[in-house]
Amino acid sequence: MSDVLSFGNPVFQQFAFYSGLVIGKTLLMGPITSFFRLSHDTYSNEEDCKLSKDKSLKPRFNDLTVERIRRCHQNDVENVVPFVLFGLFYVATEPYPEVASILFRTFAASRFLHTACYMVPLPQPSRFVCFLTGVGVTGAMAFRVFMTSSM
Amino acid sequence: MSDVLSFGNPVFQQFAFYSGLVIGKTLLMGPITSFFRLSHDTYSNEEDCKLSKDKSLKPRFNDLTVERIRRCHQNDVENVVPFVLFGLFYVATEPYPEVASILFRTFAASRFLHTACYMVPLPQPSRFVCFLTGVGVTGAMAFRVFMTSSM
Amino acid sequence: MSDVLSFGNPVFQQFAFYSGLVIGKTLLMGPITSFFRLSHDTYSNEEDCKLSKDKSLKPRFNDLTVERIRRCHQNDVENVVPFVLFGLFYVATEPYPEVASILFRTFAASRFLHTACYMVPLPQPSRFVCFLTGVGVTGAMAFRVFMTSSM
Repeated sequence: MSDVLSFGNPVFQQFAFYSGLVIGKTLLMGPITSFFRLSHDTYSNEEDCKLSKDKSLKPRFNDLTVERIRRCHQNDVENVVPFVLFGLFYVATEPYPEVASILFRTFAASRFLHTACYMVPLPQPSRFVCFLTGVGVTGAMAFRVFMTSSM
Repeated sequence: MSDVLSFGNPVFQQFAFYSGLVIGKTLLMGPITSFFRLSHDTYSNEEDCKLSKDKSLKPRFNDLTVERIRRCHQNDVENVVPFVLFGLFYVATEPYPEVASILFRTFAASRFLHTACYMVPLPQPSRFVCFLTGVGVTGAMAFRVFMTSSM
Repeated sequence: MSDVLSFGNPVFQQFAFYSGLVIGKTLLMGPITSFFRLSHDTYSNEEDCKLSKDKSLKPRFNDLTVERIRRCHQNDVENVVPFVLFGLFYVATEPYPEVASILFRTFAASRFLHTACYMVPLPQPSRFVCFLTGVGVTGAMAFRVFMTSSM
């Protein structure tokens, strides 16, 4: 029998794939922020302002696009990281593979849609629904982790 | 013999339980922020302001309660995530179960008290002591991880 | 044969060591922020201002050093956490130990240099290169995780 936390376990394999998608998406927000900082000539640090052609440029924190990307990135960190951490424990509870698969896919879809809602932006409550869907999936995994770990 | 990172290991089971408490608490700060944004009519995005009855509402970032909750949430992310990540390695070092149990409980208690101190708010240095207790527990686990991994 | 996620696996042992270095460094930014808040008499909360001798002190968010440390801390959270999470899956793919070792060391070096660049501060693009190096290492691990998990 394979270890529960190894690629010999199909639930772990699925978890690695969907976690990878959402962590990768979160990580990409960093270089995307850099790209918009450069194209919008908006920096947080004195030494970064030297990258601009405008030699009198000062740090500023009010570019609408850059701040929107940063809030989206922050929301990812606050939601994706708890999903992956709870997910590791959840996989260790040996859930039904079909249920696990639905939860992982729903979470990944909710986070990609959340980013779309934030970046377009789409009218509320579309983003709010995506956010709550993600929290709900993580909550469902958390429930099983507590059931198993408090036995 | 069970795997060290599985519910067959009582230390892992305890770790899953107390990690679950603190990750769950961190995750809940998201919907709590949403609740106070709605009840205080304070939003970060133009499209969110349409949720308000006041059609001339603009994004604002100076609501004392919302900003306090956000700082508390941020402090959770900065402390709970390192605890859980170091904790996984710490459980893999096969620590004495009694010591592990004390560390996990102390950390969880320190973070719930930290939130209470932040939200009431209680006079300093109560919050600072809770913060340092959490850092100390994670530091103690880190010490064992370094001792084991640098052998 | 040992479990892949245990200290019996030399790749896991190396991963624990280098992850520990970068998580520990991230965690330390918290107390360092506290130290500079106290020495610069700069606080975010009304109740913290009572720690000051100046009884009329108000919360403020414009101390250059404190805000710089906070941005550095935030950048750590946004990059170190994805590295460790992808790293767990990456170790489970059973990579060549020599390749894994190079990736872990490169990441750790890039993050310590990133902090040095941020704190001195060194002229750009030094910090930007460190940031992209870290993202590149995590991306390389992510690539292998996707190859293995989508099979």
